[in-house]
Amino acid sequence: MSNILAINAGSSSLKFQLIDMPEETVVTKGLVERIGLENGIFTISVNGEKVTLTQDIPDHGVAVQILLDQLISQGIIKSFDEIDGVGHRVVHGGEAFSDSVLITPEVLKEIENVSELAPLHNPANVTGIKAFQEILPNVPHVAVFDTAFHQTMPESSYLYSLPYEYYEKYGIRKYGFHGTSHKYVTQRAAELMGKPIEDLRLISCHLGNGASIAAVQGGKSIDTSMGFTPLAGLTMGTRSGDVDPALIPYIMEKTGQSAEEVINVFNKKSGLLGITGFSSDLRDIEEAAKEGNDRAELALKVFASHIHKYIGAYAARMNGVDAIIFTAGIGENSDTIRELVLTGLEYMGVYWDKDLNKGRGEERFISYPFSPVKVMVIPTNEEVMIARDTVRLGNI
Amino acid sequence: MSNILAINAGSSSLKFQLIDMPEETVVTKGLVERIGLENGIFTISVNGEKVTLTQDIPDHGVAVQILLDQLISQGIIKSFDEIDGVGHRVVHGGEAFSDSVLITPEVLKEIENVSELAPLHNPANVTGIKAFQEILPNVPHVAVFDTAFHQTMPESSYLYSLPYEYYEKYGIRKYGFHGTSHKYVTQRAAELMGKPIEDLRLISCHLGNGASIAAVQGGKSIDTSMGFTPLAGLTMGTRSGDVDPALIPYIMEKTGQSAEEVINVFNKKSGLLGITGFSSDLRDIEEAAKEGNDRAELALKVFASHIHKYIGAYAARMNGVDAIIFTAGIGENSDTIRELVLTGLEYMGVYWDKDLNKGRGEERFISYPFSPVKVMVIPTNEEVMIARDTVRLGNI
Repeated sequence: MSNILAINAGSSSLKFQLIDMPEETVVTKGLVERIGLENGIFTISVNGEKVTLTQDIPDHGVAVQILLDQLISQGIIKSFDEIDGVGHRVVHGGEAFSDSVLITPEVLKEIENVSELAPLHNPANVTGIKAFQEILPNVPHVAVFDTAFHQTMPESSYLYSLPYEYYEKYGIRKYGFHGTSHKYVTQRAAELMGKPIEDLRLISCHLGNGASIAAVQGGKSIDTSMGFTPLAGLTMGTRSGDVDPALIPYIMEKTGQSAEEVINVFNKKSGLLGITGFSSDLRDIEEAAKEGNDRAELALKVFASHIHKYIGAYAARMNGVDAIIFTAGIGENSDTIRELVLTGLEYMGVYWDKDLNKGRGEERFISYPFSPVKVMVIPTNEEVMIARDTVRLGNI
Repeated sequence: MSNILAINAGSSSLKFQLIDMPEETVVTKGLVERIGLENGIFTISVNGEKVTLTQDIPDHGVAVQILLDQLISQGIIKSFDEIDGVGHRVVHGGEAFSDSVLITPEVLKEIENVSELAPLHNPANVTGIKAFQEILPNVPHVAVFDTAFHQTMPESSYLYSLPYEYYEKYGIRKYGFHGTSHKYVTQRAAELMGKPIEDLRLISCHLGNGASIAAVQGGKSIDTSMGFTPLAGLTMGTRSGDVDPALIPYIMEKTGQSAEEVINVFNKKSGLLGITGFSSDLRDIEEAAKEGNDRAELALKVFASHIHKYIGAYAARMNGVDAIIFTAGIGENSDTIRELVLTGLEYMGVYWDKDLNKGRGEERFISYPFSPVKVMVIPTNEEVMIARDTVRLGNI
């Protein structure tokens, strides 16, 4: 038995789970918030109860110190020696990383080099890694990238139709994100189907506040909806997804915003929020639609129809599909969206059961047993993937 | 019998066909080039021979005068009275026009109002209309819009996931283009299938130097790949199609270009030209690919895979498809692209014949007779659509 910490470090926050491997049991989990601000908040789950601590947490080093001290003082571990490895989520691995990797000084330097591609995320991930390495220098640290799973895409999937030197000089291509989630749910789908993943054509719909869809053939991502950044693809909570690029100068001229400001609107004030005008939260929108709000109903239709069309496109990409998987907050919990997405796919062999579709969160098939194409709800678990890769690459 | 002029006026050019209706026979056709520049060129086809005239053509008025005079002096008509109506292609009808329309002073004003949405095209179209109206004031003039056929799209297809007020204030939405062509080939497909178009789900692939795909259900466009402008959708000769919008500020920063300049690169130096680095002409690219040029092969793959995925998406949009239609320069003539696009669609019932696929231009089925989904090559004919609408709306 070994204890693995799975870490997701943001610029002012740090999420953690302590996972007992190989059983994959969550020993505890929690969150450090407001790092670098006044009145930092530390939350940890102890025997199912939430324990909260408020104090100034000036930097990630202090956050890590508090986290580890609390693991001891709450009686979860007896000493730091009981931590056997740390797995770190890193958003962007560029073209350098097509798998998780044991963090060496060279690897850390390379992750920093890729920061230009994810200036909001990678530097925070690196800060997190350094803080843990300082306090736990003798255990393996492993980086697990959001982009790595999609590095199997062929060039005809990832290349934009732009001047080729943009790719060569500036690394402009489709990278894709949510890779850890797409990998987890597609592996799990193969298990649930009782078939080798090598034989399967899967479409994975990761629908959270960010949303992306992947075509996974033989266990390998061959196409995905997000692009150079997580703005691209389908509409999301606050993100526009793909729009006519020519709109940017048009909107700049109409509104007097800079290109950066327009992209900020596309990232933060668009998507479901943009259409409804009142919320990016699907639960609010479903509620409003039930009460007859037209724009809420329209937002549901637009969102579902984007997903529906991606499923069609990726089925064509693989000359058919064996299973469609729904995961993440909306994918796991909204029977309304799943119903809208799945309605009208009989032509490709999708037959699903309205009763099985009802209900939230639980791992299950929602297709009829006779349906040639299976449909599944599979709650994602990125932390367990991080723990698995930490054990594998740290030789734990 | 009536003679209809079908006109396509650009900023420095003017294409024409004289069509005998209702037989739909082309009496003559030709082109005026370099209007407003020195050494204008007038070309007209007389008894199958090309006649060329070179002289300064200072404006569209002079161009129209030369055109009509030449119709007489070449013995094609005896007097202007033999022209019974003029149909004008207009690129953008905004939301104002969902069908062709008889041009009244109010209509002309409205077309000018829409110019903001197509600043490169509508003003030239208007100039053409005015020049013809002046010389032929007593015949009906009809405007035929590239966008009109797509005005049947539901809001969930045409709305971008941007702040809703962008739609209300600035008309930002998907309009779609090539409507006259999509309408012509889908009507023709229904005829060739011997079925009422009301019962059919059709996917029309207009693949020229510009390229767009439309989902046409019951004779109505319900979705299309181009957007607010003709830049959006799939990759084209020199246009990028959809890319991650966040690339624009990234490229601006990397290259020091303005947003307008970046969009200019997306319009003029991207697409097949951007990937290959040497040509936007598919014939050159096919040749180079045969000789082993990797980037040429890659460009073919990217282009075909975009079309392939749109077919998948639009099949999902309509819960299946009855026929897929290829038209325009590439769609009519490139068996290579059709083969790449059609390979791997058996899952939705597309079975096609390699021998029937060979050959260029000719109207025909290329699917096997037993194929549930029919595949057709149909040469487009926008001029005949313009002539038909001119007869219909001009009560000729």
